[in-house]
Amino acid sequence: MNPLAIPEIVIKRLPLYLRTLRLLGDEGQAVTSSQDIGDRLGISATQVRKDLSYFGEFGKQGTGYDIQYLQQQLREILKIDRRWKLVLIGAGDLGRAVLRYTGFEEGGFSIVAVLDKDERKIGKQMGRLKVADIARLPEVLREHGVQIAIIAVPASNAKEVADALVKAGVKAILSYAPVSLSLPSHVHVQHIDPVLGLQSMTYYLDPGQG
Amino acid sequence: MNPLAIPEIVIKRLPLYLRTLRLLGDEGQAVTSSQDIGDRLGISATQVRKDLSYFGEFGKQGTGYDIQYLQQQLREILKIDRRWKLVLIGAGDLGRAVLRYTGFEEGGFSIVAVLDKDERKIGKQMGRLKVADIARLPEVLREHGVQIAIIAVPASNAKEVADALVKAGVKAILSYAPVSLSLPSHVHVQHIDPVLGLQSMTYYLDPGQG
Repeated sequence: MNPLAIPEIVIKRLPLYLRTLRLLGDEGQAVTSSQDIGDRLGISATQVRKDLSYFGEFGKQGTGYDIQYLQQQLREILKIDRRWKLVLIGAGDLGRAVLRYTGFEEGGFSIVAVLDKDERKIGKQMGRLKVADIARLPEVLREHGVQIAIIAVPASNAKEVADALVKAGVKAILSYAPVSLSLPSHVHVQHIDPVLGLQSMTYYLDPGQG
Repeated sequence: MNPLAIPEIVIKRLPLYLRTLRLLGDEGQAVTSSQDIGDRLGISATQVRKDLSYFGEFGKQGTGYDIQYLQQQLREILKIDRRWKLVLIGAGDLGRAVLRYTGFEEGGFSIVAVLDKDERKIGKQMGRLKVADIARLPEVLREHGVQIAIIAVPASNAKEVADALVKAGVKAILSYAPVSLSLPSHVHVQHIDPVLGLQSMTYYLDPGQG
């Protein structure tokens, strides 16, 4: 099937399924069902089955899904059955927190370079990496064979950085900056927006108690 | 309608609709359609209409939605037509980045206290706040009337912190720690997991170029 024929919203749910399968596996289960997966995520079993059916037949009627096998299949589909290299733009507090965050390595992603435009930061050691000059971006990308970048710069610089990344050939951007980035359609962008999570929780709270 | 009768996945989409409406408004539009909103989010127009119909009749057949009015309605539904106070747990790099992040204030959330257990951090100034001892948590929550907390501590401490928050009466937690937290069902938890965003983008990349 043409990979672009599958709705993006389906692709975005696959990492959630993968994470749920890993949790179920950690709890000692070997087999699960679309109902189980759906219950954990607040999605219907029908939706889970429909999403997975885009990619093949992974479970058997009545016996469910083999957790190990389905994880492996999803990792192949998402192309995370290999390690991806990332560059990190921004060597401030947020950049440092991103570099320390262990979830990237565990999820199959290695940060291979940190770049900044601030001369006071360039050349300084940050964890296991030395901060490089953002002017060296094209060279750093080529050297390491990197297609993915994380933006951890202030909102006011994010657009400029994103444009430079696109110009240098980056294909996917994870942005922590609280601004939306309009980029060419061949570039994939995901925003980390913590406010969305908060806004869906306040629905359930009683303001009178606040 | 009983607020708990609406699927959680629908509630989670409302902040996305709100953000999309704000962007459309910023672009100068006054009116939009479920098709427009859906297109921006990769969701079907039918789904958008169905989600909104849980809460009332916001648009007119043929004329669409008034962007200002629908934003105001969604803000009321999500209870973000007022300001919520938050406490931040963790005064490290990540905590500092969270405190500097302007998106919370813009989204209706004010961080009123930062707490940590590290004696070297307690009492130190962090931005406009002084780091308080985590032991003072119940007192700080009561003093400010806070029900929501952000966890920005290392993975190894997250469970302990979450348990303390629940014990002290916190009702909603936004966690940056890369571990899943099992908490009583009356406590709402949202995880910020940047890896999920990356894993849905690699699907579209060609590893051969990496």
